Amino acid sequence: MGTSLNRVEEEDYSSYTNSSDFISISLEDNNNTTTTATSTSKSSSELHPVCLPPHVTTWQKLNHRLREIFFPDDPLHIFKDQSWRRKLVLAFQYVFPILRWAPHYSLSLFRSDLIAGLTIASLAIPQGISYAKLANLQPIIGLYSSFVPPIVYSVLGSSRHIGIGPVSVASLVMGTMLDGEVSHSNKKDLYLELAFTSTLFAGLFQASLGIFRLGFIIDFLSKATLIGFMAGAAVIVSLQQLKGLLGITHFTSDMELIPVLESVFNSIKEWKWETIVMGFCFLIFLLVARFISTRKPRLFWVSAAAPLTSVILSSLLIFLLKSKLKHVSIIGHLPKGVNPTSENKLYFHGPHLQLAIKTGIITGILSLTEGIAVGRTFASLHNYQVDGNKEMIAIGFMNIVGCCFSCYVTTGSFSRSAVNYNAGAKTIFSNIVMAATVLVTLLFLMPLFHYTPDFVLAAIIITAVVGLVDYKAALRLWKLDKLDFVACCCSFFGVLFISVQIGLAIAVGVSVFKIILHVTRPNTVVLGNIPGTQIFRSLNHYENATRVPSFLILSIESPIFFANSLYLQERISRWVRGEENRIRENNESALKCVILDMTAVTAIDTSGIDAISELKKNMDKRSLQLALVNLVGTVMEKLHQSKTLDSFRSKGLYLTVGEAVDDLSSSWKHWP
Amino acid sequence: MGTSLNRVEEEDYSSYTNSSDFISISLEDNNNTTTTATSTSKSSSELHPVCLPPHVTTWQKLNHRLREIFFPDDPLHIFKDQSWRRKLVLAFQYVFPILRWAPHYSLSLFRSDLIAGLTIASLAIPQGISYAKLANLQPIIGLYSSFVPPIVYSVLGSSRHIGIGPVSVASLVMGTMLDGEVSHSNKKDLYLELAFTSTLFAGLFQASLGIFRLGFIIDFLSKATLIGFMAGAAVIVSLQQLKGLLGITHFTSDMELIPVLESVFNSIKEWKWETIVMGFCFLIFLLVARFISTRKPRLFWVSAAAPLTSVILSSLLIFLLKSKLKHVSIIGHLPKGVNPTSENKLYFHGPHLQLAIKTGIITGILSLTEGIAVGRTFASLHNYQVDGNKEMIAIGFMNIVGCCFSCYVTTGSFSRSAVNYNAGAKTIFSNIVMAATVLVTLLFLMPLFHYTPDFVLAAIIITAVVGLVDYKAALRLWKLDKLDFVACCCSFFGVLFISVQIGLAIAVGVSVFKIILHVTRPNTVVLGNIPGTQIFRSLNHYENATRVPSFLILSIESPIFFANSLYLQERISRWVRGEENRIRENNESALKCVILDMTAVTAIDTSGIDAISELKKNMDKRSLQLALVNLVGTVMEKLHQSKTLDSFRSKGLYLTVGEAVDDLSSSWKHWP
Repeated sequence: MGTSLNRVEEEDYSSYTNSSDFISISLEDNNNTTTTATSTSKSSSELHPVCLPPHVTTWQKLNHRLREIFFPDDPLHIFKDQSWRRKLVLAFQYVFPILRWAPHYSLSLFRSDLIAGLTIASLAIPQGISYAKLANLQPIIGLYSSFVPPIVYSVLGSSRHIGIGPVSVASLVMGTMLDGEVSHSNKKDLYLELAFTSTLFAGLFQASLGIFRLGFIIDFLSKATLIGFMAGAAVIVSLQQLKGLLGITHFTSDMELIPVLESVFNSIKEWKWETIVMGFCFLIFLLVARFISTRKPRLFWVSAAAPLTSVILSSLLIFLLKSKLKHVSIIGHLPKGVNPTSENKLYFHGPHLQLAIKTGIITGILSLTEGIAVGRTFASLHNYQVDGNKEMIAIGFMNIVGCCFSCYVTTGSFSRSAVNYNAGAKTIFSNIVMAATVLVTLLFLMPLFHYTPDFVLAAIIITAVVGLVDYKAALRLWKLDKLDFVACCCSFFGVLFISVQIGLAIAVGVSVFKIILHVTRPNTVVLGNIPGTQIFRSLNHYENATRVPSFLILSIESPIFFANSLYLQERISRWVRGEENRIRENNESALKCVILDMTAVTAIDTSGIDAISELKKNMDKRSLQLALVNLVGTVMEKLHQSKTLDSFRSKGLYLTVGEAVDDLSSSWKHWP
Repeated sequence: MGTSLNRVEEEDYSSYTNSSDFISISLEDNNNTTTTATSTSKSSSELHPVCLPPHVTTWQKLNHRLREIFFPDDPLHIFKDQSWRRKLVLAFQYVFPILRWAPHYSLSLFRSDLIAGLTIASLAIPQGISYAKLANLQPIIGLYSSFVPPIVYSVLGSSRHIGIGPVSVASLVMGTMLDGEVSHSNKKDLYLELAFTSTLFAGLFQASLGIFRLGFIIDFLSKATLIGFMAGAAVIVSLQQLKGLLGITHFTSDMELIPVLESVFNSIKEWKWETIVMGFCFLIFLLVARFISTRKPRLFWVSAAAPLTSVILSSLLIFLLKSKLKHVSIIGHLPKGVNPTSENKLYFHGPHLQLAIKTGIITGILSLTEGIAVGRTFASLHNYQVDGNKEMIAIGFMNIVGCCFSCYVTTGSFSRSAVNYNAGAKTIFSNIVMAATVLVTLLFLMPLFHYTPDFVLAAIIITAVVGLVDYKAALRLWKLDKLDFVACCCSFFGVLFISVQIGLAIAVGVSVFKIILHVTRPNTVVLGNIPGTQIFRSLNHYENATRVPSFLILSIESPIFFANSLYLQERISRWVRGEENRIRENNESALKCVILDMTAVTAIDTSGIDAISELKKNMDKRSLQLALVNLVGTVMEKLHQSKTLDSFRSKGLYLTVGEAVDDLSSSWKHWP
């Protein structure tokens, strides 16, 4: 359907072409006027007609516009020109991508996926336990969340290398937001209910973004703001882990920098040296493992195996020395068995419903951002397509199903996916292998985690989030785009000093403000002629470009909207004033004409139309000619409909700057 | 200073020009390759070098940017090249524009201003009384507000034709917002205090917008949204006046459509036929007078004098028939005398301070919008400049002074200014005449208004606000710009059914959304060659443009930001896919190269940079060449800094589409 749509558009347009009225621009043959007035006119010039675009009805425009908003990737193009039967098969494959690869699944693929699956399982188990603690949930919930969601995603998702599970940022945000209103220690059951309910709303939100094809909304969390946000969250999370690492028992549940630091230093008396020594040993071990793997990607298994190794070693250590290390806080009893159902634990009535919805939406959008980015990254490495909206539906359903089986918010995790990819995963089957391994753990191995100390979980979390502080990316932002860097800093400090939600809101605000600022104060650039050509380029940019005597040629570098129409009027007046002063000082020939190159004016609204006609009147009062060059179709149409174009018909509309300069300067020769 | 700034910029830039490194683009002499591969290459082509813009430091960029944001009109240019003494005089004249015209004031000017001043006074007195009632204030406050503020403005303001006084919309909004929290009938004193305090904050807000040169903020209330807002407000105000016109005693103080209509029809028993008959007679009289004046601007005095005439006639009528018309509600006792001071009535502590600030900001911005628009309209009619930020300071100070002399929010009123202009006002002195007339009224004539009936005030208000329903402008919006029309409708229905503040917020939201939408889903247009030229234009727009075989030439019509970088990647891929399908169906020569015309890409952020390099990789994988044409200075610089440009250096960067097509197609001839 892809090209058919394109072609339909063109046919729609071209069917109206015959009725399009040409603007009766001066088409007298200028060939016999040997123009030598300006340096630009090389040969006898021939004017090319400026015409209105073909008429398009409002309905067609709306249709086109809506299609561009909601179906820019033309997702149905695969169905084009297919038989009915084939279409049905394709539709099934579209909904369940597993049908695409499962029939061709081979033993060699299985071997790769098996190794990758076992590798990510060894990472998933300690990560699951740790992240659940980050969300103030029992550790077992983290394991449950590494079992059901990966299986659901395997059926519905189209990424091949993603690794599904809970992620640090979403866990942190959920923990903070819920704990702010309902204490996880005093109201354990209510807290758990709210966590599942938030997961449900996260899933509903994600799936509906996908279904209504509103996936582009997550693009508004620009990479720059996410870098800042992630780094801020990582700092907070790391500092919070000092609780486990220093063995502190009384700790704030706040998430801002200052109360956390206060908590750490106000409780020096509670610090336990055994915990500190062991904790930092394991932390260093994990960080070294991570460092090795980042340096040599072939040694990815070092960092993948390190968390599980740490858990086993530390549990053994505590078990052996349990009589001497009574103070060390451990996980304690964990129930055996597969995920219990939890649909009866959803919370739909009561004073905290709004909290659950809000938490769901925010964790939903954050986890979606990570999941979609992971999917796209690995898809582009292997050159296959991942349909963003389709992925959102898959992730959404995964969470909707998950919340009925005691899982909290999950998504595609960066760390797991990287390990999965490096371990040689070929299809999403590696996630099923991981889920099976987690199942075995849940059924038989849970007692082994009884003596796992909290400090090793803290060390695992710190090692995981350290990678989120991407100072190199921040430096690159500083180098390339200062405003992006400001957005990044705003979200970083917003998260650090105010709160996660406000930090996020500020970041989105700054990003949108950037766009608005660009539109509110667009550039206007003076163009000059590149000698010996008909090319006109910025005088500031091209030093060989020269001013054309008697002309002021301005390029307007933005659509003209209500937000900038007044500014542009004032700015153009100022350019004219400046040029007249310059001419007076240098005793050059007087300014006669202002040419506006409208190539970059890709849209105009009613305020913009008024600005153009106001400008025309203004120039008329100063006895200056005003010419518009290269009007874009829609702009031309609107100026025509509003009759503004009428005053430009004679010597006011040109296709290129070169033709405008030639024609106007030759007309002055005739009529001095 | 105006041009000096320009020239300083240029010097800044040009001083770096020598150090700018030229990109080593293929500059081999192509003259001996007689290119005939495509229809576009007319003659032997010569490539023009693409170079980086001269280096500009971050500080210079920031400086330039800030100057463009805050001083786009270069307000200090008048001081340039002047002696010290002259600069001092100019500075005084800048702060007190009265010094500009007062020394040259003549008797003939005075004669014109006197007539105009008396005319607007006859309008100002009944309007002042009526609008004060709209704001739920005693009628006398409206007269006070027509005395002090015009005098202050005359000294500070630079518009010559403006007529200062209270206006309907700001009165209405103040009345609604304050009455929503503090009843004007039960807590009269507190209400009055809050009104003066709101006026103070309105003035402070207005003046600080001007002082910090943030005047462009009011541009975000686009004309389209204002049309809707004004119309909605007018409908509400008119319906509310049914209270006076029908003689209802119990009436809602709500401002939404539904409660107001309910109030009207639930109180049918209270309707009084005498009031209704007389009220509608005067309403028809006023509307006819208004109609005459709109048809024949020379008869402006008909509508100017009608309100005062109505007041006098109706007061006389009630006075003469007072024994028979006891039910008719009248103004009653009004105190004689000049404005009492009210600085002790300002409310700075207590629970309602936030309300006063909010009301102040909203009425401030609304009255500012009207005042600035009035000033600009008449300035452009008489071709003099009005500095928006300067005007804001004048209006702000006028309100700050006003609130200390029992005045509420005032600004330049459309109706008064139009009458003033039509009555032949030459300078702002007509406002002083008006103020003097109001003073006389305040001192001696107040008892005459004792018997003025409420229904005549209602009729005056309806006649005044009827003009705010500008259905013709709304129709024009529908014709020219559907999205503007939607914004207009949103604010209209928002005001009508929700509330004034929310209506306003929705309107601004829709306007900003329009900008964001344009940036999020920019156009990409396929270009074709206009035969016999080096000009490339949209295939949809110019039917004589033809596709160049083996090339797909796309023009990207927007800056590339985080909000559209992914969309553009997908859209370009889809264009390529569509073009390849088209070629396959038509058996044309295979696609070899994609050219992106980047003229309208006037800015890029880090996401955009990533999108370009992603696109390059993508095209490399498809074995397609990717060439960028006419990169704007800043975009080029960023792509260079991020090393993205490196992969384009050979056969990837061109100055014009024509040169790109010629060079690339000739290179294929050499290396088939």
